[in-house]
Amino acid sequence: MNQKNAFYAQSGGVTSVINASACGVIETCRQNKNRIAKLYAGHNGIIGALSEELIDTSLESDADIAALKSTPSGAFGSCRFKLKSLEQNRHEYERLIAVFQAHDIGYFFYNGGGDSADTCYKVSQLSEKMGYPVQAIHIPKTVDNDLPVTDNCPGFGSVAKYIAVSALEASFDVRSMARTSTKVFVLEVMGRHAGWITAAGGLIADYGIPVVLLLPEIDFDHDRFVEAVKNKVENHGYCTVVVSEGARYANGKFLAEQGSRDSFGHAQLGGVAPVVANLVKQALGYKIHWAVADYLQRAARHLASATDVEQAYALGKAGVEMALEGKNAIMPTIDRVSNRPYRWEIGSTALSEVANVEKIMPLDFISDDGFGITDSCRDYLYPLIAGESYPQYDERGMPKYIVLKNQLVDKKLPVFEL
Amino acid sequence: MNQKNAFYAQSGGVTSVINASACGVIETCRQNKNRIAKLYAGHNGIIGALSEELIDTSLESDADIAALKSTPSGAFGSCRFKLKSLEQNRHEYERLIAVFQAHDIGYFFYNGGGDSADTCYKVSQLSEKMGYPVQAIHIPKTVDNDLPVTDNCPGFGSVAKYIAVSALEASFDVRSMARTSTKVFVLEVMGRHAGWITAAGGLIADYGIPVVLLLPEIDFDHDRFVEAVKNKVENHGYCTVVVSEGARYANGKFLAEQGSRDSFGHAQLGGVAPVVANLVKQALGYKIHWAVADYLQRAARHLASATDVEQAYALGKAGVEMALEGKNAIMPTIDRVSNRPYRWEIGSTALSEVANVEKIMPLDFISDDGFGITDSCRDYLYPLIAGESYPQYDERGMPKYIVLKNQLVDKKLPVFEL
Repeated sequence: MNQKNAFYAQSGGVTSVINASACGVIETCRQNKNRIAKLYAGHNGIIGALSEELIDTSLESDADIAALKSTPSGAFGSCRFKLKSLEQNRHEYERLIAVFQAHDIGYFFYNGGGDSADTCYKVSQLSEKMGYPVQAIHIPKTVDNDLPVTDNCPGFGSVAKYIAVSALEASFDVRSMARTSTKVFVLEVMGRHAGWITAAGGLIADYGIPVVLLLPEIDFDHDRFVEAVKNKVENHGYCTVVVSEGARYANGKFLAEQGSRDSFGHAQLGGVAPVVANLVKQALGYKIHWAVADYLQRAARHLASATDVEQAYALGKAGVEMALEGKNAIMPTIDRVSNRPYRWEIGSTALSEVANVEKIMPLDFISDDGFGITDSCRDYLYPLIAGESYPQYDERGMPKYIVLKNQLVDKKLPVFEL
Repeated sequence: MNQKNAFYAQSGGVTSVINASACGVIETCRQNKNRIAKLYAGHNGIIGALSEELIDTSLESDADIAALKSTPSGAFGSCRFKLKSLEQNRHEYERLIAVFQAHDIGYFFYNGGGDSADTCYKVSQLSEKMGYPVQAIHIPKTVDNDLPVTDNCPGFGSVAKYIAVSALEASFDVRSMARTSTKVFVLEVMGRHAGWITAAGGLIADYGIPVVLLLPEIDFDHDRFVEAVKNKVENHGYCTVVVSEGARYANGKFLAEQGSRDSFGHAQLGGVAPVVANLVKQALGYKIHWAVADYLQRAARHLASATDVEQAYALGKAGVEMALEGKNAIMPTIDRVSNRPYRWEIGSTALSEVANVEKIMPLDFISDDGFGITDSCRDYLYPLIAGESYPQYDERGMPKYIVLKNQLVDKKLPVFEL
């Protein structure tokens, strides 16, 4: 068989387990050196391909590559850079293929969300037409869990675990103090237009915590929300609110876009938690605290889900195996086989099925009042947060996260203006 | 020897390890039943004593008490309720002593910060005068680490670990993305007027992260701060800012008190992180993200420091042992013996030395530019965050935190109006 090189890039917002997928890709390539000579990684994602900044992963030791499995963030750098449509910006796609050709790259592994699935698909199609066929494999990754076909997305399970555990801990705190102090705690979480992460906050109801969710799938209704919080506080003495960054009114306006301004009249940067806290304070007068987890949630490798780490690795590995089987324009998926016991296996889907499709929460996962989750949702979520996968710590008490050498290979092409 | 009952109460903001101190108190009382017949816990702290809501801890199983060691929050409830001065509100102190007398309580263990040390001290003095002497022992607890005499305070080490690890993880994330996305990440932390928790964020400089601290001990200077952030971003491509909730201008005004208002003109609830984020955005135009850890940090038992858990337990145990030795108006302390290897032992101090004294960071812990920490500070901090002490998890992936039965004993006195 022909020996080719391969290219791997991380795309979009990073997660606590995207490096576990990288680890799966790299280790599987190393096991197949007769077929894949070298694996290059894009420095800062696809930008690294366009600018011909290719990291030679063969210069990293086996031990350092293994350490990727327990290191959060994107070890090679990622980027937010969506290639435009072929019609608008054909020369970017042509450049990609020129770089692949110059470095004898026959396999393209793209590790990202919906946008990168689309890019990956286009590369496979165009390369064919241009007479330099590249096998393009998309490895799913997104904390938002909004990719279609696959049962779930690597990155999500760990954020879900972080949010469920953190909301539980903070709720225990508030319960201790509610007699004379804080009665309502508001936690803002990520997820964009999908309520998956917010739903994970709903799991704490199983541990006796009164919780109200504000999901992006349900139009925000001020009076119904205030009434729900009031009921919880009157019955339990306190209440936890988990609100999605994407929560919005029926007219589509985000709660975060209240147009709040500082004392100089400057628009304030986002944050839906203070908006919700203010609103409860105005309506009910309770003492309130609020938290915005922001990047802490998606970077929290210290509290990763073992299931998530295992699946992230398995998808990276499967991506390489599918490439070696000759597959193209495909994405390996997680297929759920059963809930009790939880069993899953690797499946796959054509990229044409994935590109630019956003999967929001099914309505039967949301309770009738819109503020909680159903048993179907619990059955879906718990397996994804099951198991702990701790990083090693140094003797000073800090986690041992790896920083790679990231040495670039020599360029062979003229400079390309981004 | 006379057998007496004992009373234990949790005071002020709870922590991830205050229940470990409770565990130390209760287990040590149980080992000395010949001297301490029953240990009652105040329901919601000292309010439980005033209102005669006494929890009978003898009804809890040994296993459940042991589980306190790995459960965050205040298992019996805490409160923010500072007894006024003796002159202003003598009847509250008299009520306390009446309740102690009615329930044959000879030992008072009060688990809190500076305010409760003061209350504890007054109870010991007044009870003497009233002819019903109670041995009052204060068990230190505060995430703010601002109690004097003791080398450090239980609760702090775990928050310090949480902030150092979380800031490291989020900084790895930002470093991955900075080429095209967020360049500055702002993390708001607790600590009131003391910069101890903020300082813990400074430890990430040892792991290659460009970090700027905003400590309450250093007057905020807008231009110097902006310059520091700009330098970090220009040299490293990104920057992490850890800001104390207590950061303030030279005139004493808190940064958080910017008087920001929502679109209806209502004052917004606190949050210094969005203020700092806005300020960097205005001055430098960088893309920014910000997080407010709030209760997540002090409740994060999932990432507790093993040193902290051990010390919290040891101080609870020592408090009971000191009481049995006849000590009164005293607080057990952590005395640092050496840094390498880290060794500590239990000491003690008179409560008169502790009450209402606030320990801020020594200036030689702060770097010359005011935005970082010195090696002395590192030597101080690392031992306090060393070691991991994980809670157990259930098969669904959630931590096994205990909820006690908390049964109240029958009241013997008339109702007391709080």
